[in-house]
Order: sequence, then structure tokens, then C-alpha cells
Amino acid sequence: MTATTLPMLETYPQPINLDRARLAATIDTLVACAEACTACADACLSEDTVSELTKCIRTDLDCADICAATARVLSRRTGYDATVSRALLVACATACRSSGDECARHADMHEHCRLCAAACAEGEAACRDLLTAMG
Amino acid sequence: MTATTLPMLETYPQPINLDRARLAATIDTLVACAEACTACADACLSEDTVSELTKCIRTDLDCADICAATARVLSRRTGYDATVSRALLVACATACRSSGDECARHADMHEHCRLCAAACAEGEAACRDLLTAMG
Amino acid sequence: MTATTLPMLETYPQPINLDRARLAATIDTLVACAEACTACADACLSEDTVSELTKCIRTDLDCADICAATARVLSRRTGYDATVSRALLVACATACRSSGDECARHADMHEHCRLCAAACAEGEAACRDLLTAMG
Amino acid sequence: MTATTLPMLETYPQPINLDRARLAATIDTLVACAEACTACADACLSEDTVSELTKCIRTDLDCADICAATARVLSRRTGYDATVSRALLVACATACRSSGDECARHADMHEHCRLCAAACAEGEAACRDLLTAMG
Repeated sequence: MTATTLPMLETYPQPINLDRARLAATIDTLVACAEACTACADACLSEDTVSELTKCIRTDLDCADICAATARVLSRRTGYDATVSRALLVACATACRSSGDECARHADMHEHCRLCAAACAEGEAACRDLLTAMG
Repeated sequence: MTATTLPMLETYPQPINLDRARLAATIDTLVACAEACTACADACLSEDTVSELTKCIRTDLDCADICAATARVLSRRTGYDATVSRALLVACATACRSSGDECARHADMHEHCRLCAAACAEGEAACRDLLTAMG
Repeated sequence: MTATTLPMLETYPQPINLDRARLAATIDTLVACAEACTACADACLSEDTVSELTKCIRTDLDCADICAATARVLSRRTGYDATVSRALLVACATACRSSGDECARHADMHEHCRLCAAACAEGEAACRDLLTAMG
Repeated sequence: MTATTLPMLETYPQPINLDRARLAATIDTLVACAEACTACADACLSEDTVSELTKCIRTDLDCADICAATARVLSRRTGYDATVSRALLVACATACRSSGDECARHADMHEHCRLCAAACAEGEAACRDLLTAMG
């Protein structure tokens, strides 16, 4: 199945003060980052060298939780409060950076860390781009 | 961004007793269903006829929570316990059915309900197919 | 702060076809179990013997996600659909059993596993009791 | 069941650079706030005047998601990264303020909004106090 994030946003019955395609792309990127982090934490847990990957697991779990919450908040447009979205996007960018940096340290050893670091980098960029677009 | 669910599963360092492509497709379908339900609940909340859509909002919220939890559990392969996955897939199929049925009742009036009903139908089918594949 | 689960349920403006005190106690038990599992997974991750605790971490993470989703679903009474609650309570009891059994295996070595096993046992019992009460 | 947040934190096997009792109290307050917001959103949904409560439902849902994610992140101490916790606490305080302000507007009419506004005020204060304690 293809995500229907943009088609769903296009049916939202009130105005949205952001470009809907950009907003949908941000949500999809964060949902994908959350999924990558959940999978990376579990893959790390199954490595023989798990004892060297405990910080990576932890930052993955945090990033998954924060990206998932941020995607949900961004998906809601009713009674929009920019201050909440902005603060959460800052936190989400911070979590993506932390998790991405940690995964990048293991990217040569573990392909799941390499892929997850890339997903986190996209997540961080998406948050910062939306913050810029929100003005 | 494209979801990296399958590439991530392909880097999991231990055997997986399911076809990885099928498993990734199930996860992606449930993640997409969760996102559709979150957006549909919010679109319903912004309709002038919100008072007629309260049950739809509630079933959407439940389905979003259960699909998100199921996608996470399926994404974890370490120390796999089939009994948990099976019971959760049954619950997830039930939630998708409940939310999909409710959205279908409003599909003629609201395009977001039509799209969400389709996402829920795919979610339910994905759960049932994986249950069958798990044997 | 004390949880306000029961006071909140007492202000729900429509009938609830379950004893509100019992329902609130179930929700509080599942919320506490979710929190215990989140903390136990992290404590396991910081043990020198983490490589022997990977299944425990995984079942903890699953149990946390499923208990949290179940507590949310039970907290919603609008447009109540018993089939979803029942299937989810079965899945939650299964997850609590799986996580509790795994934690119990490490209870002599790790106090966090002993406490978490007790929280999971209470979670499982709460799910089964509510299923019985629902008839 | 009583939450075992503090007993669980006391079994964490490494140092924690914060007072454990304060940290546990913060987590419990955020978990209680999340639960209150989930219940308040649903109670609003069952009010005859739901069409006047749509913004309240939305801010409740956001606050529930953000408080739940924050409680999880704070519960993890492995590989601690203060920058993520700080940014998330700021976002959580912002969400509690937004939801609390909206609930307070309906506190005279709806007891669930009065209780939820109080829970949000405690959540916001807990976030700000922990930020201060973190230095």
C-alpha cells in the first residue's frame, strides 16, 4: 500500500496555512524515520556486539517515539496552534540529529545503522525545512 | 521519502521465519492505515457535521493506536513470540474492521472517510493474510 | 501527582456499561505496567549482561506498546465497540504474560526484572478480570 | 495498582545525574496528564456541544501524545543525551500550556475540562521544574 497522507490532507475540509504537499512529505518522512528507528533498535539488539550498541538502541527508541508523536501532531489541523508544532519540530530535529549521529558511528559495521542514519538525516532536514516554511 | 521498511528488514542479522517482503508490506500497510485514521479523525473533527461523526472519530483513534502498536511489534524480530503477534494481529484486524465499517457509512458524504475506509480494508486484509502466512 | 483516571471517568457524560471504578483500576494497572516495561527495557540495556537480556528487552518493548494502546482504547467510551476492546484485552493479556514470563526468568538477578514481572502479572490479571466482567 | 516508577528508577544499574525521586514524580505527572487528556478528548466527544469543543479535543490529543512520548524518553537513562530531553521538555510544557488553556476555557461547563486543565497545569510545571533542575 502507498501512504495516503497527501490525499487525506487534500480532503481536510478547512484551510491549511501550509502547502499541503510539503506538509504531507514531512509527515511521510517522519513516519518512515520512526519505522527505521524501531527496526534499527531491534536489529542492534540482535547483533553479537549488542553491548557496544546500547546507546544506539536508546537514541533509536527515543527518535521513534518523538517522530511518531510529531507526525500525529502535524497530521492534525483542527484548532491549529503553531507554538506547539514549532517546539515539537525543534525537539524532533534534535532527536533525529542525536539518533542519526549515533547510527552514523556504526554505519560502517552495520547496514541497518547506515540506512537509519540516512532516514534520521532526512527526518531532521524535514523538520528544519517545515520550521522555515512556517516562518 | 520512501519508507525503508523492507531494506531495514533485509539487514536484520538473524533469520526471520516469514517472507521479509510480505512482512514489510504488512508493516507499511498498517503504518499507512494508522496515518489515514489519524488524519480522518481530525478531518471529521473539522466538519460542520462533527456531532454525527463522533463514533467515526473514536474508531479512527482506536484504529490508529492499534495499527501503530502492531506495526512496531511486527518490526521487532528479536526473541520472537508468535503468540503475541497472533493475538495482536487479531485485535488489529478487528479494529480495522470496526473503523472501516464506520468510515464506510460516511464515505458518500466525506472523501476522507472513503479513503480511510479503503485504508482500513487494506489493513484488515494485511492482518488476516499475515495470520494465514504465520500458520 | 495522583492519576485522575477514576475522577475523569466519573465525569464522562454518557452511561458506561461497566463499573467505572473497576475500569479505572484496569486502566491504571495497564499504564503502570507500560511504564514498568519501558523502564525495565532501559535498565536491561544498561546491565553488563545485556547480551543475555535481549529477549527481555524486546518483550518489554512490545508489552509497553500494547499496554499503552489498550489503556487508551479503554479510556474511550464514545461509540463503544466491545469486539475491539475484547480482542485487544486478549492481546494485552498475552503480551503481559510473555513479558512477565521473560522478566521472571531474570528476577533473581535483576530487581528491575522482579518488579516488572510483578507489574506484568497485575496487567495480565487486570485484562482477564475485565474480560470476565464484560461477559 | 500503584505506579512503580520510582522503585523502577531505583533499580537502574548506572548513575543518574538527577534526583531519582524528582525524575519519577515528573514521569508520573506526565503519564497522568496523558491519561487525563485522552479521557477529556473522549468526554468532549460525547458532549452534546461537541461542535464547540473541537479545538479542545485536538489540543487534548496532541498533549496526550507528547506527554506519553516525553514520559518514555525521561524513563530511559542509557546513553543519556540532555539536548533531546531539554528540547522535548520545552515542547511538552508548550503542549500542556496549550491544552490546559483550552480546557480552562470550558472548565465552568465541563468538569472533565476542569480536571484536565489542572492535570495540564501540573504537567507544564513538572516540565519546567525538571528543566530548571537539569540546569
